[in-house]
Amino acid sequence: MNRLIKKYDLNAIFISGPGHGAPAILSNSYLEGVYSEVYPDKSQDIQGMKRFFKQFSFPGGIGSHATPETPGSLHEGGELGYSISHAFGTVFDHPDLISLTMVGDGESETGPLATSWHSTKFLNPITDGAVLPVLHLNGYKINNPAVLARVSHKELEALFVGYGWTPYFVEGSDIPSMHQAMASTLERCVNEIREYQKQARESGKAFRPRWPMIVLRTPKGWTGPRKVGDHFLEGFWRAHQVPLPDVLANKSKLQLLEEWMRSYRPEKLFDESGALVPELKDLAPTGQRRMSANPITNGGILRRKLHVPDFRDYGVDVQTGGTQTLGSMANFAKLLRDVIKDNPHDFRLFGPDETESNKLGAVYEAGKKVWLADYFKEDADGGNLAFDGRVMEMLSEHTVEGWLEGYILSGRHGLLNSYEPFIHIIDSMVNQHCKWIEKCLEVEWRVKVASLNILLTATVWRQDHNGFTHQDPGFLDVVANKSPEVVRIYLPPDANCLLSVGDHCLRSSNYVNVIVADKQEHLQFLSMEQAIAHCTKGLGIWDWASNDQGFEPDLVMASCGDVSTHESLAATALLREHLPDLKIRFVNVVDLFKLIPAAQHPHGLSDREYKAIFTDDKPVIFNFHSYPWLIHRLTYKRKGQHHLAVRGYKEKGNIDTPLELAIRNGTDRFSLAIDAIDRIPSLGDKASATREALLNAQIKARNYAFHEGIDPEDLTTWTWPY
Amino acid sequence: MNRLIKKYDLNAIFISGPGHGAPAILSNSYLEGVYSEVYPDKSQDIQGMKRFFKQFSFPGGIGSHATPETPGSLHEGGELGYSISHAFGTVFDHPDLISLTMVGDGESETGPLATSWHSTKFLNPITDGAVLPVLHLNGYKINNPAVLARVSHKELEALFVGYGWTPYFVEGSDIPSMHQAMASTLERCVNEIREYQKQARESGKAFRPRWPMIVLRTPKGWTGPRKVGDHFLEGFWRAHQVPLPDVLANKSKLQLLEEWMRSYRPEKLFDESGALVPELKDLAPTGQRRMSANPITNGGILRRKLHVPDFRDYGVDVQTGGTQTLGSMANFAKLLRDVIKDNPHDFRLFGPDETESNKLGAVYEAGKKVWLADYFKEDADGGNLAFDGRVMEMLSEHTVEGWLEGYILSGRHGLLNSYEPFIHIIDSMVNQHCKWIEKCLEVEWRVKVASLNILLTATVWRQDHNGFTHQDPGFLDVVANKSPEVVRIYLPPDANCLLSVGDHCLRSSNYVNVIVADKQEHLQFLSMEQAIAHCTKGLGIWDWASNDQGFEPDLVMASCGDVSTHESLAATALLREHLPDLKIRFVNVVDLFKLIPAAQHPHGLSDREYKAIFTDDKPVIFNFHSYPWLIHRLTYKRKGQHHLAVRGYKEKGNIDTPLELAIRNGTDRFSLAIDAIDRIPSLGDKASATREALLNAQIKARNYAFHEGIDPEDLTTWTWPY
Repeated sequence: MNRLIKKYDLNAIFISGPGHGAPAILSNSYLEGVYSEVYPDKSQDIQGMKRFFKQFSFPGGIGSHATPETPGSLHEGGELGYSISHAFGTVFDHPDLISLTMVGDGESETGPLATSWHSTKFLNPITDGAVLPVLHLNGYKINNPAVLARVSHKELEALFVGYGWTPYFVEGSDIPSMHQAMASTLERCVNEIREYQKQARESGKAFRPRWPMIVLRTPKGWTGPRKVGDHFLEGFWRAHQVPLPDVLANKSKLQLLEEWMRSYRPEKLFDESGALVPELKDLAPTGQRRMSANPITNGGILRRKLHVPDFRDYGVDVQTGGTQTLGSMANFAKLLRDVIKDNPHDFRLFGPDETESNKLGAVYEAGKKVWLADYFKEDADGGNLAFDGRVMEMLSEHTVEGWLEGYILSGRHGLLNSYEPFIHIIDSMVNQHCKWIEKCLEVEWRVKVASLNILLTATVWRQDHNGFTHQDPGFLDVVANKSPEVVRIYLPPDANCLLSVGDHCLRSSNYVNVIVADKQEHLQFLSMEQAIAHCTKGLGIWDWASNDQGFEPDLVMASCGDVSTHESLAATALLREHLPDLKIRFVNVVDLFKLIPAAQHPHGLSDREYKAIFTDDKPVIFNFHSYPWLIHRLTYKRKGQHHLAVRGYKEKGNIDTPLELAIRNGTDRFSLAIDAIDRIPSLGDKASATREALLNAQIKARNYAFHEGIDPEDLTTWTWPY
Repeated sequence: MNRLIKKYDLNAIFISGPGHGAPAILSNSYLEGVYSEVYPDKSQDIQGMKRFFKQFSFPGGIGSHATPETPGSLHEGGELGYSISHAFGTVFDHPDLISLTMVGDGESETGPLATSWHSTKFLNPITDGAVLPVLHLNGYKINNPAVLARVSHKELEALFVGYGWTPYFVEGSDIPSMHQAMASTLERCVNEIREYQKQARESGKAFRPRWPMIVLRTPKGWTGPRKVGDHFLEGFWRAHQVPLPDVLANKSKLQLLEEWMRSYRPEKLFDESGALVPELKDLAPTGQRRMSANPITNGGILRRKLHVPDFRDYGVDVQTGGTQTLGSMANFAKLLRDVIKDNPHDFRLFGPDETESNKLGAVYEAGKKVWLADYFKEDADGGNLAFDGRVMEMLSEHTVEGWLEGYILSGRHGLLNSYEPFIHIIDSMVNQHCKWIEKCLEVEWRVKVASLNILLTATVWRQDHNGFTHQDPGFLDVVANKSPEVVRIYLPPDANCLLSVGDHCLRSSNYVNVIVADKQEHLQFLSMEQAIAHCTKGLGIWDWASNDQGFEPDLVMASCGDVSTHESLAATALLREHLPDLKIRFVNVVDLFKLIPAAQHPHGLSDREYKAIFTDDKPVIFNFHSYPWLIHRLTYKRKGQHHLAVRGYKEKGNIDTPLELAIRNGTDRFSLAIDAIDRIPSLGDKASATREALLNAQIKARNYAFHEGIDPEDLTTWTWPY
């Protein structure tokens, strides 16, 4: 590839997919001089080379995966399956980039990798670069043969033709001829790529080329001893990871190792000082053309500031909180639309076929859905498909998430929208991305990239027709386990808060931001000014919904999440109707990590601040969007935690009305109000009468809903009465 | 298919993969009479049919996915991607079963589905049945075309040839000819399946047929109006889910709907009472041959009790706790081996190429790895591959999990082993399975199936060479969010406990059991008798490691997890060395849900029981395997929770020695002992001297490890001194 980079002045990077795949990228980086420039103690001499070797996969050293410490890497490959989707993410809107991507035959068995081959249907040969995959069939995983290495040539070829590629095969074990075969095949592929691009760019007509790819079949442990004792090594799984494990204890194995290493004839490759001989050094390109020095692999360098229009211009006019209804998500879509418009080359929206369903359809006014597969006449009927769109939709959470990761890691911006329940599908990918950006903070030459923004909607409380399988708000638990340096969780209660939070997330860097907001119509609570103040603080007392001004409250009603806030306010209204003397403070939380102690997260409140809001001795009825215990996990150190009663989703649901679902989980207005009454002993006689009235109201609403099959207490019809 | 079932007396079931895919299976079940037998109020008359229609996707009714309430369903299809892997799970060891499996073209874009086509490489035509997939290209998802419906015929055909299938195409929209085409193609496929099976069974030689599959291309919303106003309906995504949404308000749309429905000529299909006319009724098979009455779809009916040899026979002889070292996992492998041996037709072990790495290699003595792809000569060298093995390994957590789910849902038993960090890949699948078995408890005719057993190893604390990407013990948080009726989590501290817990899990039903245990060599603590008593209680005081007998303890040292227990005991030893008068109670937790209040989980301790073990006023230093806040989330209601200091993985790690990793997360012996000292004010002067000694010892160990790159405090060398 270096030869071709020099010959054609290519802009290329290398992505190493196979497990323990760092050696390739590390050694190349070292040989082309980049490693020593980045880490001067790993100099290009005997001393430096020793240090370079010694640190490998060793305590205090570096990993055997292509971790953030590795120059030229933006893909670690610790968890397998994402090399192709990451690679496509890097080439979108990088028209001159070729991402040479090694795919392991183990990795190729994973689901995420298996579907990511279809990414070509979303790649535009005019505006995007190209991915050149090298599927490496070395035949074995840890302890098993690889499936793709054990099917017929006909099947293997058909598979990649079927995926829409043109596969070229380089197979063998004779080193000189394999080098020649690989060199000429690579060149042919690069030329084909350039031809397709030229054709599309000169004609101005995009199409879907059957892009070239390489299937490289070589022995695992190639160049190693064919047998050790009675066992196969080269060409077998025994060559995995540490092919000769006991060289310290076993002299004959040490000798085998030495022979193997000497077969590379190091004395011809390096001079006496340990430096690569000049004629080999000259094979590499220079400067940023070296793949391990390409700034795209340290994408923060290239990241331009995102143009975000003033979110205030999209604000909803709210005169009185809790009295008017509007779709927060549909409103937010307008901001997203204009972000797309104002950033035509470095922002994309991603989603698994749910963008319209999630009420974000307005974005198509600024950028349609990228589609390079066949078109039918029906597509003209609002299909919103285009060769050069800005919205990326494929029904694979893995693929769209992988694209987004690749896109931001190579210096751009984006947002993923998804149904809340199915975001668990990519728990592990988000985990791994968190780990990547957290480690990047420790690598001083890494420049921060844009945040990975995840917008979750179609939430647990509004899955009436989809039922139990669609009710899972637990992604927040997964995210909350990651390093506080890199994770942020926001639950804006209304349209103006969603705008404020969205603006903040889009502008931020190096975080995983999770925003949870429902897509249905909802009561609006805060004016734009109030929303900005509220979101900036992250949580706060809503004075307009409280009546404890000038008094100690008897009760704190708290909420986090839009539907939850709605019910909490309704409960507060019920309590004030029945018990007008009760002093109720209403608190809303937008930024979930405000709840955690300051020492544990940069957003955390001090105990003093926490007490000023929640008190430390009054009952707090906290209505939470997600599983209730997450709030306890965040607040267990707070003095008042024993007074905290959290309600949330408790895994109770079916094809229920919103009211029934809330009642089953104790998050409806009646349950909340009853819960409050039960926690205020001073109410005395008044308590039992109110309790009974509320219970009757709940039963009436419930029975009605149950027998008629409709929901008379449709939560969006309630308004704030005070 | 009914015609073929009758003609050939087939044993067949139907799996409905597409989203909102229940209508097919519901209507067929109703028409063949099963639905009315199961739900007599949905009788085969006008009244019953009305009820049947009215309940559909309606509050208080049933879902639009094939939920557990659906007779004949073992695959809900709420979350997409698992129809093929589930189907293969059903046919393993069911040699006469054909699972007819509808795959949606949306679903086909998901990663899990895309790789699951390779399942044929693991299906034995002699001992297993067959899956007959019908890929349904109706062309559209919610709001987008489907990728596979928009590629050339050549690509589509090549893709499935490449996956190893023989695709047959049934394409069109002319109803009579499509019925004929489908009927004859189905028959051809069934005959091919039977031919392949016959060939293999009569010759006794297994091979990998290029199994037949059907690609069915029909318009979405087929038979509906082609256009509504100016918009396409039939043959476009507008036909998704609710094709004509506003018939109540819009008379002309109501008329369209009526015309559409009348085009089926119901008056010719049903008699005046609303019953299907006899000549159509006769088309269906009878009794259990009806696909929706096939007992395999209610697999608990068929489940045989698993033969588990007496686990005590595999016990490790432990005379003194904490003095001898052994690999718990390698020992457990022997029990698993004999479970495989004793249950040759209804137990399989599943894993993503990690069984050997996880030290479970002994299982291959009883059952090799199933492999129907090509063989090479190297495989004879301990490859452990066979046509008719009992271990299922493919590098796709999704596929092996899907197989296991299908296997147990159709009445068998199994266990999945996996690296702990990458089990997050299937968070969502496990979530969905939990939801399935939880709902099954509410469906009275569903018979309990075997538990889904997940054995996690290669745990967070022993990832020295793999580093940060391999450190994630957070799967427990995901599981703990599910219904307490169906989830169980065990962290056995040693070999005998692992045996006891493993035995329990293998015999249990209708749970998701998660067992976490390291695969390295570890100190052993309990004799078999002690282990049984300990695991039966789920947690307990280890008297042999405590010195508070007859006293109130000054301190409780608690642990959960094998590595964590090891360090907790080492800390206890350090404390007793430095502060012999300190009364320390040592507590170990095996069954995580013991910590939660009894009202919240069937395993939960009462407050009284909890206090008897942990006290409610003494400091408790709790060393936990996973993220520490999970313990707080379980115990926040306990009176003594403010005295509970939990240590666990806090997302701090790299290529570290075990000691360094523990220190970074505060879970090492020194940190634990210092923590304890800091929480006992009565120690006075003695505290600071001990504190300093411990700190020095920690620094010394740490520096040594850091500079020499090795771990002098190798945790396995420490033994219990008292």
